[in-house]
Amino acid sequence: MRAVDVIIKKRNHQTLTREEIEFFIRGYTQGEIPDYQASAWAMAVVLNGMDIQETSHLTMAMAFSGETIDLSGVVPIAVDKHSTGGVGDKTTLVVEPIVAACGLPVAKMSGRGLGFTGGTLDKMESIPGYRVDLTTEEFLSQLRRVGLVLCGQTADLAPADRKLYALRDVTGTVRSTPLIASSIMCKKIAGGAQKILLDVKVGLGSFMTDLDSARELAETMVRIGQETGRETVAVISDMNQPLGRAVGNALEVIEGVETLRGGGPPDFRQHCLAVASQLLILGNLAQDESQAEKLALQALDSGRALERFRQLVQAQGGDVSYVDDLQKFPRARLHEVLRAAQGGFLSRLDALQIGQASVLLGAGRAKMGDPVDHAVGILVHHKVGDRVEEGEPLVTIYANQPAALNEARSMVQTALEIVPQAVEPLPLFYDIVRWKDIAAKQPN
Amino acid sequence: MRAVDVIIKKRNHQTLTREEIEFFIRGYTQGEIPDYQASAWAMAVVLNGMDIQETSHLTMAMAFSGETIDLSGVVPIAVDKHSTGGVGDKTTLVVEPIVAACGLPVAKMSGRGLGFTGGTLDKMESIPGYRVDLTTEEFLSQLRRVGLVLCGQTADLAPADRKLYALRDVTGTVRSTPLIASSIMCKKIAGGAQKILLDVKVGLGSFMTDLDSARELAETMVRIGQETGRETVAVISDMNQPLGRAVGNALEVIEGVETLRGGGPPDFRQHCLAVASQLLILGNLAQDESQAEKLALQALDSGRALERFRQLVQAQGGDVSYVDDLQKFPRARLHEVLRAAQGGFLSRLDALQIGQASVLLGAGRAKMGDPVDHAVGILVHHKVGDRVEEGEPLVTIYANQPAALNEARSMVQTALEIVPQAVEPLPLFYDIVRWKDIAAKQPN
Repeated sequence: MRAVDVIIKKRNHQTLTREEIEFFIRGYTQGEIPDYQASAWAMAVVLNGMDIQETSHLTMAMAFSGETIDLSGVVPIAVDKHSTGGVGDKTTLVVEPIVAACGLPVAKMSGRGLGFTGGTLDKMESIPGYRVDLTTEEFLSQLRRVGLVLCGQTADLAPADRKLYALRDVTGTVRSTPLIASSIMCKKIAGGAQKILLDVKVGLGSFMTDLDSARELAETMVRIGQETGRETVAVISDMNQPLGRAVGNALEVIEGVETLRGGGPPDFRQHCLAVASQLLILGNLAQDESQAEKLALQALDSGRALERFRQLVQAQGGDVSYVDDLQKFPRARLHEVLRAAQGGFLSRLDALQIGQASVLLGAGRAKMGDPVDHAVGILVHHKVGDRVEEGEPLVTIYANQPAALNEARSMVQTALEIVPQAVEPLPLFYDIVRWKDIAAKQPN
Repeated sequence: MRAVDVIIKKRNHQTLTREEIEFFIRGYTQGEIPDYQASAWAMAVVLNGMDIQETSHLTMAMAFSGETIDLSGVVPIAVDKHSTGGVGDKTTLVVEPIVAACGLPVAKMSGRGLGFTGGTLDKMESIPGYRVDLTTEEFLSQLRRVGLVLCGQTADLAPADRKLYALRDVTGTVRSTPLIASSIMCKKIAGGAQKILLDVKVGLGSFMTDLDSARELAETMVRIGQETGRETVAVISDMNQPLGRAVGNALEVIEGVETLRGGGPPDFRQHCLAVASQLLILGNLAQDESQAEKLALQALDSGRALERFRQLVQAQGGDVSYVDDLQKFPRARLHEVLRAAQGGFLSRLDALQIGQASVLLGAGRAKMGDPVDHAVGILVHHKVGDRVEEGEPLVTIYANQPAALNEARSMVQTALEIVPQAVEPLPLFYDIVRWKDIAAKQPN
C-alpha cells in the first residue's frame, strides 16, 4: 500500500477502507508518511468528506495510536463528558462533583485554554497547590479512592490526533466535521470512556456558529459512538452569550463553588443539572431525565456535591481553605463597571468578544504556552433578554494592567447591545442527540 | 500575509489574487513555506480549481521563480514547441530542422523520458558524442550561429515548478488542468518563448485519455498565452497508437533521419509537416496553412532540413557519420517478429502497452536517473485500420536481454487486436485551438 494511492482515492471521492485508514494513520504517527502527504490527504477529506464508517475507522486508528487507559477494572461504567469549548464554561467543576456524589465515579482529563475559550486546567490552578499533572497510577488510584479526578492527560493518549491536529492548524484543514468529530472522540476512547456525553456549543463564542453545523457534528459523534460501541449522547447548548456570569479563571472557580453551595447564576445551575442528569442516565443511575434531575438536585442541595469538590481539591494537593473561603482567591488590582447607556432590553452579549476581551486581560492564551493570569476576567450582570435601566451595571472588568483594561473595555463595549423593544431570552439548550433518534430517522 | 490564509481562501472556493499567488510561490521556492502547506494548497487547487487569471498568475510566478532566458536580442521571434509526451514521438527531430531550414531559428530545451513516454534528449544521445548539456552562453551562441539548438535546460529555469512538481507527484495532486497547464507554460516562458506551439496528445499512450480533458488543457494553455502576452496555439493529436513506426531511442533517430531524407512513415511525416506549418505561421513566415505547408515541404524535399539536422548534430559534438550512415547505429542483439495470428483488420495498437513494453526492454525509465539502452525498442509494421494477412509481421521487438524480450512480448501481445470487420484508421489530429476561436465562443 502506498500513501499517495490513499490520498488519490480520497481525492477521487472514493471511500477508504479500514486498512487504508489504519495504514495512513500508523504511517503518519510513526513518521513514515511525511507531513506533506498527511496535509494533502487532510485537504481531500475536508473537501470530499468521509462517511461514518471511514470517520469511525479514523477515530479508532487515532485512539489506538499510542497509550490507552483501561478503566474497566476501576469503575463500573467509565462515563466521560466533553464540551466543545466556550466562554464561561465551568460546567465540569460542578457536574463532576454532582454525579460523583450520586455514586457515579468520574475521571476527567481536561485541557488548557486557547484563544477565546477557557480551559478547565487553568481554572483549577487558581486554587494554590492544585496539581493537574498526575501519573496514570495516581489517576487510577485517586479514581478508586475518591471517585473523582480532574487533571490533564496522564499519558501519551492519541499521539496521531495531536500530530494531525497541529498540522491541520497550519494547513487550513481544521474545518471538517469528520476530522473534528474523530479528533474529539478518539481522545475520549483512548482515555477509556465507555459512555460519552458531549456538550456541543453553538453560537458566537464557539467553533460552531450555526445550529446545522453543530447538529451535524453532534450526530456524527453520536454515530461514531454507535459504530465503535461507546454509547454517546450529545446536547447542543447555547454559546451566543457566556455561560453563567463569570469569565476568567478564579472568577469561574468562585462561581462554580457558589453553585455547589446552592447559589450561582440560574442559567449555569440549570445547565449543570441538565448535563449531570444525562451523565446519570448514561451511568445507569437513573431511568429518565426527571429521575436523574431529582438525584442531581439532591446531591447539590444536600451539600454532598460541594463536599465531593472539596475532596477532589484535597486529593490533588489544592488548598481547601480557598473552597471554604472564596475571599482568599486573588483579586485583580483594577476593576471597572460598565453601565447601561440607556434603558431597554439586552439584545446581545457577544460571547466571542467577551472571550477575546478576557484574553486581552490575560485570563486566556493568544498562543499555546502563554502564561495566564488567574485573577483577571469579566463578570456579566445581565443576560440577553433582561430588562435594564439606564446607569445599571452591565459588566465588571477585572484587570491587572491599565492598558489591558482599556483594550478590554473597548472590546466589551462592542459586545453589548440594548434595544428598546422586549427581547426573548436565549435558550440554554437547542437539542439533544441520541442514537435512537438518529436510527429512527434513517431509511430502512 | 500568511500561507495558511491563502490555503483557506482556496479551500473556500475563493479566487486568489496575483499578490497571494506570488507570495505563496515565492515563499515555497525559498523554503519559507513548507511542503506540507504547499501540498494542502495543491489539493485545494486540484479539487476547487483556479480561474484563468489565477492560472496565469501562477504561471508567471513560477516562470520568474529562478533564472530566465532572454532571446529577444538573439532571434527575431522566439518560437517554441512543446509536446505533452507520447510513444514514438520523435517530432522535434524533424520539425525543428524543417523550420530552421525555412529561416526560423529555433532553440529547444527538451527533457528526458520517464515512464512510458520517451524523451528527446535520450533519443539524441543515441548519436555518439552528442552533448545535451550546454551552458546558456553555448546555447545562445549556437542559436545565433547555427539557428538550431536541441539540448537540456541550460539554467535553473522555473525552480518553483520543479519543486512543486516533485511534491505533486507524491501527494496525489498531479491531475489538475490549471496545475498541469501552468507547469508546462512556465518553463516555456522562463526559456524565453514569445510564441508557443503546443502538441497536446490524447489517447491511451498519453496523460490525457479523453478528448474533453485534452481540449480543456489545450484551451487553458492558449488562454494563459493570451493572458501573459505569449501567443499560443495548440494542436490536439492522437496518441492511441504510437506515432510513426519506431519506439526506442536509436530506432526513433533512424526514423527521424529517414523522414528528413524524404521517406519515413506517412503518418509521422504528415504530423511533422502539420506541426512545422503551425510554427511557421507563428513565426510570421507564412500567412496560412497552405502557404506554410508548401514552405515546409520544400525544406524537406530539397534536403535542406536534413542538412540543418546534420549541422545541429555537428554543432553539439555528435558524430555526423551516423546521420549519413544509419547502419552505424547500435542494434540490439536479439530481435523477434510478432506475426498476425489471423487475417483481418488491426483495431488496436495500444500506445500505452507498447510504451510500457519499451520500458521493460530498457528503452525508457521506470524512475528518474535510471540508465537507458539506446539500441532496444519496438518497430510496428502496421497501424490501426490496416488490413493484415495471417502470418504477416505486425511488430518487431529489439532486445538485449532474453528475459526482457519475454516480458515485452507478453505486453506487446496484449496491445494488439485484429478483428474481421473493416476498421477506420485513427486520425492524426482531432483539433487545433487558437485564441481567436476561444474568444469567438465567449459571451460578450
